[in-house]
Amino acid sequence: MSRQDDSGGTWAVIMAGGSGTRFWPLSRKTRPKQLLSLLTERSLLAETVARVAPAVVDPAHVLIVTGPALAEPTRALFEGSPVRTVVEPRARNTAPCIGLAAALVAHERPSGVLAVLPADQTITDVAAFRRTFRAASALASTGRIVTVGIRPSHPETGYGYIRRGAALESPGLEVAAYAVQAFVEKPNRATAESYLASGDYDWNAGMFFVRADVMLAAIGRHLPGLAAGLAEYRPAIGTPGEESALARCFELAEPISIDFGVMEKEADNTVIIPADIGWSDVGSWRTLLDFREGEDNFTRGDVSLTDVSGSVVLSTGPHVEVLGVTGLTVVATPDAVLVAPIDRSQDVGALVKRLNETGRQELT
Amino acid sequence: MSRQDDSGGTWAVIMAGGSGTRFWPLSRKTRPKQLLSLLTERSLLAETVARVAPAVVDPAHVLIVTGPALAEPTRALFEGSPVRTVVEPRARNTAPCIGLAAALVAHERPSGVLAVLPADQTITDVAAFRRTFRAASALASTGRIVTVGIRPSHPETGYGYIRRGAALESPGLEVAAYAVQAFVEKPNRATAESYLASGDYDWNAGMFFVRADVMLAAIGRHLPGLAAGLAEYRPAIGTPGEESALARCFELAEPISIDFGVMEKEADNTVIIPADIGWSDVGSWRTLLDFREGEDNFTRGDVSLTDVSGSVVLSTGPHVEVLGVTGLTVVATPDAVLVAPIDRSQDVGALVKRLNETGRQELT
Repeated sequence: MSRQDDSGGTWAVIMAGGSGTRFWPLSRKTRPKQLLSLLTERSLLAETVARVAPAVVDPAHVLIVTGPALAEPTRALFEGSPVRTVVEPRARNTAPCIGLAAALVAHERPSGVLAVLPADQTITDVAAFRRTFRAASALASTGRIVTVGIRPSHPETGYGYIRRGAALESPGLEVAAYAVQAFVEKPNRATAESYLASGDYDWNAGMFFVRADVMLAAIGRHLPGLAAGLAEYRPAIGTPGEESALARCFELAEPISIDFGVMEKEADNTVIIPADIGWSDVGSWRTLLDFREGEDNFTRGDVSLTDVSGSVVLSTGPHVEVLGVTGLTVVATPDAVLVAPIDRSQDVGALVKRLNETGRQELT
Repeated sequence: MSRQDDSGGTWAVIMAGGSGTRFWPLSRKTRPKQLLSLLTERSLLAETVARVAPAVVDPAHVLIVTGPALAEPTRALFEGSPVRTVVEPRARNTAPCIGLAAALVAHERPSGVLAVLPADQTITDVAAFRRTFRAASALASTGRIVTVGIRPSHPETGYGYIRRGAALESPGLEVAAYAVQAFVEKPNRATAESYLASGDYDWNAGMFFVRADVMLAAIGRHLPGLAAGLAEYRPAIGTPGEESALARCFELAEPISIDFGVMEKEADNTVIIPADIGWSDVGSWRTLLDFREGEDNFTRGDVSLTDVSGSVVLSTGPHVEVLGVTGLTVVATPDAVLVAPIDRSQDVGALVKRLNETGRQELT
């Protein structure tokens, strides 16, 4: 099987339903992180698509899965392109989302490979990513579930980890692959430090590759509600009853993550490819400091800094003058401004929650 | 002469031509400090007028002197009131401004007293101020020039000082008055400290009281250009030629401050009334901390603070969230935002200068 054949059998499934609040005031209910242009002129979602299509998948094989509130802005982003936006009837965590994608891919080719990718991450070494993508896709086409592991750079407590097992014998692969010994949940600080020290744990970046039929079979084993829903939905694909069948499917489905609902239970059939691809989940304002490119600060928009260092300053609205500060986040939009120390980036979600609770929903 | 008669002979001359930049981004070319509502719902200028009229001067005896750029917003502030806005043809420092006011008052009553008041200060003890005002006005009506001295609270290097001489024998006065020994320019830090320690120096708050004919005679002695200009202007008052005569007067006038041009040279005829009136020149963002009224921070507008102290946070535009900072100035308007430590308030002028120099005049 040539590489060309592999890519023809792979669908990129981009999970773009997130509604995080950590990039407030830039992110809003109808403009979550994946739709923001934080690092380039393009949104994180558009960058995620451009990373794979057309280089490693046919643009017509890109499925963006999102929720009803984001359907319009997401479709608008890809108007005139063959990229397809699939709208979940409602948010039920990631297992129903992957089930839906697997059903759609299986409808076209049962042995088609899903390359499941979060929409809101960034990868700086695109060539290395594409090598990983092709290898993972090829390995998945043999029936394995393939995850991508990111070498930890610090004892992060905000990610799940994957413990590597024995190296895989796979002479045809360009990259090393390992058995998965265990998926482990977000650790506390001490545990994260021991993971880092051991060298056996990688970050679970939420990317995985799996054949549609393999995923549907696994759902059949572990998630009976979703399996029943998909059994009703799959024959309705392409018929007038598709929408109502999908709504019914999401009612029946267990609201659970694909990690808890399927992956952990299929660990024996899962392999991990460690990847050094310049990955970041762009998790908070603080993360943007990692993208300074030699500058003292991360800036975007109409901003001016004097005697400022270690700061993130962005504006999509007013002109911003920042003077004489260190380690500060300053983000301005036409209707809201945030000023907070960079090391309190994680508290931004609580601010948004309070705005919602105090009748200021127009700002969230 | 009853107190009522005194006040009938006094005109409040409010110098409202200032164009400072220290309150950027709230202050702009056509909305300088005196037009800002920094401390109350009213602008500093409106507060200055309300402090004197009708309590100690007839509203029809209030002359606000400003420049062409501010004529419209200033007049708008007093629409429907007898308060009169006088527009200088161009900015020539304060001596021509006072000369013009003296000419206008003399046109109505040569012995009328001018109470010259900066438009952009604040006074918290209004009753004490009005007592000082009446006493100063009465003393000025005898032919003396009367300044108001503010007891220094710290070794300020940004103000001129006045050195008190012998106490004045003036049995009819409600307040103490002293000869002026000297007007002294803004001192350096060490000199300011020695002034404070000596107890003989008061801040020159820029308020003074003088009869119109006394001022015109003093101008005749010290400022021949302005005197010549006023000699042409005064007969033209109320005639169709008034405007062109005034323009000519301001061309002839020496562009000099009233302090340098007249007051220092008339020190022998000048007296000082020390006044404890809760005065502040509201000189910079930092000054607003003095008006916190027991709060940790000074705030105005749609702002929300969490774990913040010693800070000044204002918005006339976007909602502002400030989290976890100390001693910071955050000021937001619809088109510009400033973030700077409170102790760099004095650097704001330089920011505005740079905006003007870099083609961003629309923001200044």
